[in-house]
Amino acid sequence: MNGYVVGIDLGGTETKIGIVDYNGNIVEKSIIPTLVSRGSEDVIDRIAESVRKLVHTSGVESKVLGIGVGSPGSIERESGTVIYSPNFPGWKNVPLSRRLEELTGFTTYVENDANAFAIGEWAFGTFKGTPNIVALTLGTGVGGGVISRGELITGSQGFGGELGHVIIEPDGPLCGCGSHGCLEALASATSIVRMAKEFRKRYPDSPVFRQENITARTVFDAAKTGDEMSELVVERATKALAIGIAGFVHIFNPDVIILGGGVSRAGNYLLEKVERKVRSYVMESFRGTFKIALSELVEDAGIKGAASIVYFRSK
Amino acid sequence: MNGYVVGIDLGGTETKIGIVDYNGNIVEKSIIPTLVSRGSEDVIDRIAESVRKLVHTSGVESKVLGIGVGSPGSIERESGTVIYSPNFPGWKNVPLSRRLEELTGFTTYVENDANAFAIGEWAFGTFKGTPNIVALTLGTGVGGGVISRGELITGSQGFGGELGHVIIEPDGPLCGCGSHGCLEALASATSIVRMAKEFRKRYPDSPVFRQENITARTVFDAAKTGDEMSELVVERATKALAIGIAGFVHIFNPDVIILGGGVSRAGNYLLEKVERKVRSYVMESFRGTFKIALSELVEDAGIKGAASIVYFRSK
Repeated sequence: MNGYVVGIDLGGTETKIGIVDYNGNIVEKSIIPTLVSRGSEDVIDRIAESVRKLVHTSGVESKVLGIGVGSPGSIERESGTVIYSPNFPGWKNVPLSRRLEELTGFTTYVENDANAFAIGEWAFGTFKGTPNIVALTLGTGVGGGVISRGELITGSQGFGGELGHVIIEPDGPLCGCGSHGCLEALASATSIVRMAKEFRKRYPDSPVFRQENITARTVFDAAKTGDEMSELVVERATKALAIGIAGFVHIFNPDVIILGGGVSRAGNYLLEKVERKVRSYVMESFRGTFKIALSELVEDAGIKGAASIVYFRSK
Repeated sequence: MNGYVVGIDLGGTETKIGIVDYNGNIVEKSIIPTLVSRGSEDVIDRIAESVRKLVHTSGVESKVLGIGVGSPGSIERESGTVIYSPNFPGWKNVPLSRRLEELTGFTTYVENDANAFAIGEWAFGTFKGTPNIVALTLGTGVGGGVISRGELITGSQGFGGELGHVIIEPDGPLCGCGSHGCLEALASATSIVRMAKEFRKRYPDSPVFRQENITARTVFDAAKTGDEMSELVVERATKALAIGIAGFVHIFNPDVIILGGGVSRAGNYLLEKVERKVRSYVMESFRGTFKIALSELVEDAGIKGAASIVYFRSK
């Protein structure tokens, strides 16, 4: 295919827009503040304006195949409507796809951002074209996207793939969703920081608490250097992740499980811990049937994932 | 379609064979002892002979569209090979489909028995034709089959849908698969009996222990009449089942979750307990998106499920 796609990574704070070619290279990009509080019409207007400018300056106007948007929240996929998005107050049934089409003239597809990440891996990642992919984004929350025999798992309303809300510890910490011990409540960046902070009284001397701003990265870095508190937190998070992944292996028999999002930047240290534990939780007949890998799209994965929707939907 | 299908429910003790019409009615059936110990060739020979006889006596020879076999274990679906089956010692890479085709002349499809159950529900059950179905068989083990947008979830090797081996209690009882606290180790008929027996010292007066042969049915019946020990066991089993189902709801966003197998005969008593608990584990956005139901194929569900494979594969 000889053309370009516009990928839009709609975020709570900023929105990244890029022109992406068929190989997943970003030829031009811009970042605008989302300014959610101004309301959906204002946000969409400004995004559309940025798209028009970007397409114009790149000189690819006649070669744009469409727009793909990765959006947090529950998406009605057929119509490209944002039903509800926790970090976008007031966004209820926003016809994102239709409005962007009206304002730009380009066919627009919208997917949940974790699904977009999965499709991005399928389209542009190391495991490009792999028919059975389970993708997990370990960030503020834990998002999931599943491609099974080349098709996205969406379910009846398109809400499927909420892998972050399988329950790992039935009596574990409260999750934002209202349940206890969800994967998200144990393995998201937010949860890793929360679990570390809960240890402050027991481990006041941990180097983690010398930092002004504690992130999941801080905790992983300290664990790597042998900080006991951080090791305990990493142990619990990676155990939860391994139990979740083992379940997804039994459910989907995937070729690969791809980990993305901020937590995945802990790299091989994370990967090795998770791999070892998953082995102990997986039935013998599944041994050797799957790989666990870190996403290599990291930088601009959002734009690329969003862009890939257009190729995926029109394949 | 004007024709008939042969459904074969291959079991560890007996094998049920039936001639099934397009509406799922069994027009003729026979049951033979499987006699696993005689080896796969002998078993297949006798099944083929029964099929030929049954087709002949029913007078449908010219109208048989094919054979469907529901088999326990890991199945290579494309070739219809039984890779491995825990209750069939010595069955490794048995070319079940090819041999039955050679011996009977009818095109033969093989599926894992829990997948066959799911397809049977899709073809002949109350929720006939529903595009997104999660089916669970609660018997000796816990089997699973998932139909998503009208397609069976099989994964890369065809081993997908092992819903019984998601981990519910990471520190729970040992499962036959080697993990701890799998759904199967908490909610199968076998596990329910095991958990009851573990209470014998604490509750020696439970009416359950007056029975010669304790089954899941015994435990459920006692729970219904207020037996404290049985209520505790049912509570733990239904909690596990609810946590599992809530996970499947988040993962698949199904229209319906159908419960079959011996445990499902506990009926509405089971259903109400599970439904109430699932509600408490499911995210708000999924409320009202799914139903939980008991299979109504119960009697001969195995034959019907097996038969339905032929219709499903040739749809």
